[in-house]
Amino acid sequence: MKLDILIKNIDFILTMDEKSTVIKNGNIGIKDGKIEFVNIPDSQLMNVEADRVIDGRHRLAMPGLVNTHTHCAMTLLRNYADDLPLEEWLFNNIIPVETTLKPEDIYWGTKLGIIEMIKSGTTSFADMYIHMDDVARAVMESGIRANLSRSPFFFHGGSTDELIDECQDCSDYHRKWDGAGEGRIKVYIEVHSTYLFDEGTLRASAELAKSCGTGIHIHVLETLNEVEVSKSKYGAGSVEVCEKFGLLDVPVIAAHCVYLTDSDMDIFKEKGVNIAHNPTSNLKLGSGIARIPLMLEKGLNVTIGTDGTASNNNLNMFEEMHIAALLHKGTNRNPALVSAVDALRMATVNGAEAIGFKDEIGRIEKGMKADIILLDIDKPHLFPINNPVSAVVYSAQGSDVDTVIIDGKIVLDNGNLTTIDEELVKHKVGSITERISGARS
Amino acid sequence: MKLDILIKNIDFILTMDEKSTVIKNGNIGIKDGKIEFVNIPDSQLMNVEADRVIDGRHRLAMPGLVNTHTHCAMTLLRNYADDLPLEEWLFNNIIPVETTLKPEDIYWGTKLGIIEMIKSGTTSFADMYIHMDDVARAVMESGIRANLSRSPFFFHGGSTDELIDECQDCSDYHRKWDGAGEGRIKVYIEVHSTYLFDEGTLRASAELAKSCGTGIHIHVLETLNEVEVSKSKYGAGSVEVCEKFGLLDVPVIAAHCVYLTDSDMDIFKEKGVNIAHNPTSNLKLGSGIARIPLMLEKGLNVTIGTDGTASNNNLNMFEEMHIAALLHKGTNRNPALVSAVDALRMATVNGAEAIGFKDEIGRIEKGMKADIILLDIDKPHLFPINNPVSAVVYSAQGSDVDTVIIDGKIVLDNGNLTTIDEELVKHKVGSITERISGARS
Repeated sequence: MKLDILIKNIDFILTMDEKSTVIKNGNIGIKDGKIEFVNIPDSQLMNVEADRVIDGRHRLAMPGLVNTHTHCAMTLLRNYADDLPLEEWLFNNIIPVETTLKPEDIYWGTKLGIIEMIKSGTTSFADMYIHMDDVARAVMESGIRANLSRSPFFFHGGSTDELIDECQDCSDYHRKWDGAGEGRIKVYIEVHSTYLFDEGTLRASAELAKSCGTGIHIHVLETLNEVEVSKSKYGAGSVEVCEKFGLLDVPVIAAHCVYLTDSDMDIFKEKGVNIAHNPTSNLKLGSGIARIPLMLEKGLNVTIGTDGTASNNNLNMFEEMHIAALLHKGTNRNPALVSAVDALRMATVNGAEAIGFKDEIGRIEKGMKADIILLDIDKPHLFPINNPVSAVVYSAQGSDVDTVIIDGKIVLDNGNLTTIDEELVKHKVGSITERISGARS
Repeated sequence: MKLDILIKNIDFILTMDEKSTVIKNGNIGIKDGKIEFVNIPDSQLMNVEADRVIDGRHRLAMPGLVNTHTHCAMTLLRNYADDLPLEEWLFNNIIPVETTLKPEDIYWGTKLGIIEMIKSGTTSFADMYIHMDDVARAVMESGIRANLSRSPFFFHGGSTDELIDECQDCSDYHRKWDGAGEGRIKVYIEVHSTYLFDEGTLRASAELAKSCGTGIHIHVLETLNEVEVSKSKYGAGSVEVCEKFGLLDVPVIAAHCVYLTDSDMDIFKEKGVNIAHNPTSNLKLGSGIARIPLMLEKGLNVTIGTDGTASNNNLNMFEEMHIAALLHKGTNRNPALVSAVDALRMATVNGAEAIGFKDEIGRIEKGMKADIILLDIDKPHLFPINNPVSAVVYSAQGSDVDTVIIDGKIVLDNGNLTTIDEELVKHKVGSITERISGARS
């Protein structure tokens, strides 16, 4: 048998299959972008050849992490404004800068975010931001997998004709990029939120998603303020509004979901809506804490996102898993809630389903696309390992990742990026941030 | 001028002085274990010679982190039992193993913890555990700074004569180790808690601390259960009990403090008690969330600890600062609470005061002992840096630390440990954990 990549003698493989099976001292074969086998016996391994053999000793293999909600190019605004009330943060600091950002800025900011994600073990992400053509270009070149959502409407009001034109642009974007990069890109429709849209634009977005045969990525009930606004604007809660205007008739990534009522959860369960839990961002902006244990109990598909780096301030999914596993135990005074394996499933297999790659990625199983990360576990903070699932969720750092494979290609090779020139990206982003800071001071 | 160490061209120095001054492109001189100067002009720098010159480009210098509450050798039980109710975790999993641990096990477990702490930027820690002579030996050899507390009583009841003998042992321990390692070790008296002690042992402990001229390290109100037990055992709250029996008449590190009442806080403020906030452990064990913003408002000295690795599961103070800065914003729905600089002060200058090294460490200022860490900030997740204080608290990882100086000596040199043989420690700990696992299965 001839493979592209063979990983041998891996200390632990966290398969994240249905039983979250952990394999000790295993191997993985990769061919044509897919997992050809997991853990064949040594007798069969003797007949295997591979273009590249990776030594898996002192390594833990697991599915690449899936970041289900971010605004990647906000790396440009990392640590730009912190510890501020939400309105002052957003309207006086973030949005004034965002309006000055050009397509090229977004391209470089996205590249920087992708570098950070790859280096900390994220192999796919769901993005919603501005200048999405440039985001797609960065994704194509870097080899990462992404669900990209573009908004048909940019909140300026406008005539019906203008709205129709914008829907056409969005439909063109979907046609151009959906399935690109040998299927690495999926395109959804961005609906920012029910509070920034109105009935007309919400209904039009739902129709657009249906006509494109795709899904919707939306912010839902991030703040108490949204609860109030929805009541006064629609006389109903955001989730009911989503349902009424057809937004839940397509696949949905619902980000935040801090203020879901019990019946909102039941609606989301019935409609198969995917939850993107963003614990760091929700804490940092003082938004509140989503009732994740209840969502898990009701069987919703809960996943994890970082949100943008202006409200986090990194794209490190190891931190996000860690906080997701800790937070709800403490706030509910119950150490058995959101177990390590729950958090790990949220960040892998659940995430894969949420961003439209169900049964394609998120597990290490024969036939799945090869999105795999290796952690160097020869570190003092991972010793003794005792329980590899706990080690990944409670002890590991993003920097423990040393090798990243996406779609069967090595994009991080023993710590070295193979598809992106990091120094060039830093140089370009450096110039952009100088311009931004100059405008501020 | 002849120095031991000169660090030149440092991108940022977070001094943590009274105004938390940040110096751009600065230098630090170190001589005889102390900081000789901070940021002298280039004209003076020309006349400086040093045995070792460190290039500070792409580096951020800050005071070493102070971990004010841990049980270091619990590294042996890392990821050993997770996601369990407290009683099952403690009484069925942790304590049965602890009773089998020998002095030599504690020595190696402590060494492993010290490696992890040094590599993630912690330069001093406050420890309470068993076989404290072996902890002191590990501290001496590794070059780290520590506040070590030994308990006079081991909860077995016993006659008055036995209690007097044990007090004598504890006093001997103080005499032997306090001030050792050229002042790197301070010895406090461990009082596990008011609920595991009784009036006699509490009063005896307070007297012992006074007679030794030292302080006390104690767990206070970690759980709701302790609130109940204290009521039924003493007819009063734990803090009132501490005050009544004289425990607060000496310097105190009070760990956890999850269930302090407002008046408990006032007592602690009046008595100058230091709070060791352990957010990860309190979340992970489902204990609850300490009311840190109110403590800060009342002017208490709040510091940060990791607790042991069986309830964390690492000794990473960067994670701990991060979570301390995020958590209270979210639970109080106020993004202005516990700012990045608050968290950084808690983990440095406040911690230094709490563990008995006030005005000796915790700040980068002329005349202070040189406990300094350097972060390699040439990392994608720290770019653009924008605000170096935010970057350290919200974006950095423990693994960004590449150089650690304690008491003027380099103990981590560009990622390499200079005082501890990591492979030997792992080998020894590996044998111990095999024995523990064998006994369990």
